[in-house]
Amino acid sequence: MTTYTRPIDFKRGRVDMSHGSGGRAMAQLIDELFVRHFANDLLAEQGDGACFALPTGAGRMVMATDSHVVSPLFFPGGDIGALAVHGTVNDVAMMGARPLYLSASFILEEGYPLADLLRIVKSMAQAAREVGVAIVTGDTKVVEAGKGDGVFITTTGIGLVPQGVALNAGRIAVGDRILVSGMLGDHGVAIMSHRENLTFETTIQSDTAALHGLVATMLDAVPDLHVLRDPTRGGLATVLNEFAKASGHGMLIHEKAIPVRSEVAAACELLGLDPLYVANEGKLVAFCAGQDAETLLDVMRAHPLGRDAAIIGEVIADEHAFVQMRTAFGGRRMVDWLNGEQLPRIC
Amino acid sequence: MTTYTRPIDFKRGRVDMSHGSGGRAMAQLIDELFVRHFANDLLAEQGDGACFALPTGAGRMVMATDSHVVSPLFFPGGDIGALAVHGTVNDVAMMGARPLYLSASFILEEGYPLADLLRIVKSMAQAAREVGVAIVTGDTKVVEAGKGDGVFITTTGIGLVPQGVALNAGRIAVGDRILVSGMLGDHGVAIMSHRENLTFETTIQSDTAALHGLVATMLDAVPDLHVLRDPTRGGLATVLNEFAKASGHGMLIHEKAIPVRSEVAAACELLGLDPLYVANEGKLVAFCAGQDAETLLDVMRAHPLGRDAAIIGEVIADEHAFVQMRTAFGGRRMVDWLNGEQLPRIC
Repeated sequence: MTTYTRPIDFKRGRVDMSHGSGGRAMAQLIDELFVRHFANDLLAEQGDGACFALPTGAGRMVMATDSHVVSPLFFPGGDIGALAVHGTVNDVAMMGARPLYLSASFILEEGYPLADLLRIVKSMAQAAREVGVAIVTGDTKVVEAGKGDGVFITTTGIGLVPQGVALNAGRIAVGDRILVSGMLGDHGVAIMSHRENLTFETTIQSDTAALHGLVATMLDAVPDLHVLRDPTRGGLATVLNEFAKASGHGMLIHEKAIPVRSEVAAACELLGLDPLYVANEGKLVAFCAGQDAETLLDVMRAHPLGRDAAIIGEVIADEHAFVQMRTAFGGRRMVDWLNGEQLPRIC
Repeated sequence: MTTYTRPIDFKRGRVDMSHGSGGRAMAQLIDELFVRHFANDLLAEQGDGACFALPTGAGRMVMATDSHVVSPLFFPGGDIGALAVHGTVNDVAMMGARPLYLSASFILEEGYPLADLLRIVKSMAQAAREVGVAIVTGDTKVVEAGKGDGVFITTTGIGLVPQGVALNAGRIAVGDRILVSGMLGDHGVAIMSHRENLTFETTIQSDTAALHGLVATMLDAVPDLHVLRDPTRGGLATVLNEFAKASGHGMLIHEKAIPVRSEVAAACELLGLDPLYVANEGKLVAFCAGQDAETLLDVMRAHPLGRDAAIIGEVIADEHAFVQMRTAFGGRRMVDWLNGEQLPRIC
């Protein structure tokens, strides 16, 4: 262990270019920030990467990655650190895998307060502990002031797929039921309200959460689950359009069945947003055979992260693979791909 | 396959916020740029991640990640795309692993020319093909003009460690020989000369290259190799100080033995740089037992990426774990950690 002249000043210090140079300042930042808070033996070895034994009999693996550029970095209900863990853990979980390890790579802007970076890293460390995955390797780069935006974090996750699990959009069939795990739109509306300084009676909080536990419960109860996805950027509408495109089938959802908090609906009205297109960071969309839908709904509702789960629609034969919604007034409308940008830098 | 109204205009188009929104524009960019050029079945599935079978008997795995923020994005001998593949493949290889798959995550700045992005992606695709690893999953985010710097790319690699390979700084012992695989400083000097508009008789080219093949050859010949590292940011001096710190031993290197091109040495003089601290992107440092050093040197020199390999020093008993150099004039000087920043945004 090198001893440094003095410890990093995490109260008043700022990121400077030397923190990305490969020299002593970077080594100290890695020691006193990342290794200390992510606290695991693999990271502490500080090799060019992490080396670990695979469980015997490991058959299939999932790899998923996400860059996080959310703005602001701190928002009601979370921050970029927690989001960077949850986002990638959820991508791994949506493939049916149990998360194993994460990597984390930071692009820091010169001048960013170290106190805020410390808060982010602590939040990330806590999120990883709660999930039960270690952040085993990483990287730190620094760009000049004005060439970045505080902190960007890219996380990559790997996980192992249990025997027999085969989630794939190709398995979607006419007659499948479409379920969501809870209230939609919380994350996007929390961020947008915060940006626009909108205040409501209660602050709308991001739903950022890791869904691997909920997924494990769902797979236990319904091993034949067809496919899962987390409706992040682009929201529910985007997931349904992606799955319609991939499966070649149509989708029909029912507006009345879609769970949206009244505050979120109100904020969407004010902000000119459609909750179907708003990002979520702790929700999932599931497709299963019609006969499994009630069982699946029951286990989802019994889980803390699925209390407000609902069956919201079904897969229908449609050679155009359109997504349609039966509105609250009884009509049908198309739910198209998002055109243009609705919510920039939401995750 | 969704048909889009018209194909993306890769000649005149620019990145806009909608390319990161999760909507149709992003889907089209993924289809027409990333899926098309990275061209592999796992990526084409466009799940939340990639799912693949592990080879039977896979025992240990390596995971490594790097964010690339090099400036400029195109430089003599390479570009950020090739660098993002080589950098992470090399980190995987330095752990003794055979690279298996890569992920790639892009943070794009609004307004960046799509023609340049296409060039980068094609270069990345070619580098991956040459290495023989597929880019199987990824992410695309867009930040507003002035909140990024063209293109940042984070790659994460996984690889499998062959039976019997155990590279670790803890294995460094007094009497070990220190080898480098070739001329030092090319990458850093190529970038800095380009930035400063320095011209020499011949343009100094980056050495960016994937070293997994060289590593495999070295491990075949000397399975007892102790440890490897690629001297990127901070150069040779940083690697030696990291290993001295990790092993608790001193290091003595010999200035005369260190291979540096005369143009690079001249450019370093002009730029006020010390080649020991300058980044390389296609070189490695190896430690092995004294009796294996000549064998290792021979196989390295027989490989196209190790033609100029050299034994540059040895591990010595030193309770302070200092790195020292016997200079060309016969004296000794300390080779300390890099203090401050020498070369910002070199990789």
